[in-house]
Amino acid sequence: MVFFIAMTDEFYMAKALALAARARGETSPNPMVGAVLVKNGKIIGEGYHKKAGGPHAEVIAIDNAGDRAKGAMLYVNLEPCCHKDKRTPPCTRKIIAAGIRKVVIAMKDPNPKVSGRGITELESAGIKVVSEVLEEKAARLNEFYTKHITTGQPFVLLKVAMTLDGKIATPEGESKWITGEKARSAVHSLRGSVDAVLTAIGTVKADNPRLTCRAGEGRDPVRVIIDPRLEVRPDSNVLCIPPETIIVTRRDRGDRGGPEAEGKKGILMRRGARIIEYDGEKVGMKWLLKELGGMGITSILVEGGSSLNSYCLESGIVDKVMFFIAPKIIGGRSSFPAVGGNTFRRLEEAYRVEDLSVKKIGEDVLIEGYIRY
Amino acid sequence: MVFFIAMTDEFYMAKALALAARARGETSPNPMVGAVLVKNGKIIGEGYHKKAGGPHAEVIAIDNAGDRAKGAMLYVNLEPCCHKDKRTPPCTRKIIAAGIRKVVIAMKDPNPKVSGRGITELESAGIKVVSEVLEEKAARLNEFYTKHITTGQPFVLLKVAMTLDGKIATPEGESKWITGEKARSAVHSLRGSVDAVLTAIGTVKADNPRLTCRAGEGRDPVRVIIDPRLEVRPDSNVLCIPPETIIVTRRDRGDRGGPEAEGKKGILMRRGARIIEYDGEKVGMKWLLKELGGMGITSILVEGGSSLNSYCLESGIVDKVMFFIAPKIIGGRSSFPAVGGNTFRRLEEAYRVEDLSVKKIGEDVLIEGYIRY
Repeated sequence: MVFFIAMTDEFYMAKALALAARARGETSPNPMVGAVLVKNGKIIGEGYHKKAGGPHAEVIAIDNAGDRAKGAMLYVNLEPCCHKDKRTPPCTRKIIAAGIRKVVIAMKDPNPKVSGRGITELESAGIKVVSEVLEEKAARLNEFYTKHITTGQPFVLLKVAMTLDGKIATPEGESKWITGEKARSAVHSLRGSVDAVLTAIGTVKADNPRLTCRAGEGRDPVRVIIDPRLEVRPDSNVLCIPPETIIVTRRDRGDRGGPEAEGKKGILMRRGARIIEYDGEKVGMKWLLKELGGMGITSILVEGGSSLNSYCLESGIVDKVMFFIAPKIIGGRSSFPAVGGNTFRRLEEAYRVEDLSVKKIGEDVLIEGYIRY
Repeated sequence: MVFFIAMTDEFYMAKALALAARARGETSPNPMVGAVLVKNGKIIGEGYHKKAGGPHAEVIAIDNAGDRAKGAMLYVNLEPCCHKDKRTPPCTRKIIAAGIRKVVIAMKDPNPKVSGRGITELESAGIKVVSEVLEEKAARLNEFYTKHITTGQPFVLLKVAMTLDGKIATPEGESKWITGEKARSAVHSLRGSVDAVLTAIGTVKADNPRLTCRAGEGRDPVRVIIDPRLEVRPDSNVLCIPPETIIVTRRDRGDRGGPEAEGKKGILMRRGARIIEYDGEKVGMKWLLKELGGMGITSILVEGGSSLNSYCLESGIVDKVMFFIAPKIIGGRSSFPAVGGNTFRRLEEAYRVEDLSVKKIGEDVLIEGYIRY
């Protein structure tokens, strides 16, 4: 006896999503895309987009199947592209030419150059298109890409490693290590998934961090350091260890400007640092986001102290928060809180964290969610 | 065809534990005990101890089964009592007289008057005794009882309701409401499960709380208020709403002592308050625990502010912590932290929270665990 198990669209889409996620951190500024080709209930081709400039998932899957692609169904987590202003030819043409019968899509491409036009093109060619299959999962997967392609700004992830009583450091500044090995390794993976990490000079001075991804084969993110008075030491880790570091400093640094400061800038630039200057007393975070977005940075992980965390939230730039909570209590009115700053929110105006998810990571707990302003 | 499903000892013990837990908050200073009588794979009797002075679980279960108890197996989460200095006759006698064949126990009675002697008595009578079945669960269930019967002091539970960034109030003292309805209702149930709640005058002045159990039919806990200078207002909720309130104040209140203060004491006592006085500048928490334990209080829920939380931890009296975490961020260096105080612990000496458990309660997250000093 033979059993027929009817696989649902969700089944193949989950497979496409899993394929897509294999390239996490590698495709920026492109989205992560996976494709599965199915015919007579069998997967006859699959592929995923490995990195910007490389072939698209749909193309790999179709080439993978060869002639058998004719009459098959294509599952892909993002609407196939139809525009030509990029390195590879539009996927819609490839799909039509291959004789695909039906295309199942998780989400429309938020890229205004595509957004629905890919679907229209396929339908005009007589292909049946089903969309919004596992759409929410797909939207999460490409949240960095979506934010960047629609706003020109990077997606901002704020990470906190704190004790159960909400402290990120003792009054003496001790913060190594609050969380355990598994949580720290999760942070390294996080770094491997973003284009940049953002911190402030206080953290660089206190901890001399490397801010690199020391997990598996992850890519190191670009470091962005807010350093109004250009205090960073040329021999600090962020300037001596690859990759690139961007120093964000105040154009008019007052007493500390002048030839001496220009000399410092020169030293830092010879160290390979890129320097961005802002006007005014404090850096405008929305301005900074646009600058970084313009450089092709689609995602930023904020790894700062109490004040930077507060400043980012206040500036309204945080998209997602991740709180790694260690099962430790240190107490102390003067210990550094997870979010400090001179301002606070009344309870009814508190920043709300939505779509909360909670999980244990080794001995620690991770609470993550999205900020809705 | 008939299927025989062999039920394990764990199955019946879980049932006994569930029966025991029905009387949560009602049995103090006695433990919660449930009993199940099984014969030929059938439950023929069951019962649980409803309140101090009432019949024991074993007795109810045996009476429930009547003559059929002969040759049956008894499942009970606590070693049956064998001592006579209490209101009811020892259960061991009843079990022997009923002709029970085998007794399965989750844990020994930590009461030094029993501790193993109940088992010995049963075994001497030719009854087979199996112990340590679901022992850990059973130990948790009666942790208040165990602490009190072995140390004379109540079990101390520290509860915190905080924002995700570890704040329990804004700098202005606003704390209503940080957590959502379900978490607040869980706190009411908690109050119904303990003998007393402990807070400090600061909280009473700021919030004028009732500290009663407003969940189901839970019992209201005794309120214990640390009020060194006897500042509590006679018209505050803790003095106008039942049940009893114990005011812990400094014997030598300096300028504020004398006839005026004696007059205040009189007023408070006429309001039904009980007054305990301590010597020295600050109340010794270990001394206070012994005092309260001596009054038959087996468990205390600490519901205080930053300073009291810190003081309790510093004093080494906290057994368990429960952090209710709301998905909100308020920030602010001057907001009140979950655990404040003038002292702090270095990271390597941090209070460790063990046997961590994490769950969602409505929109909030509860992280709980045990403090090991």
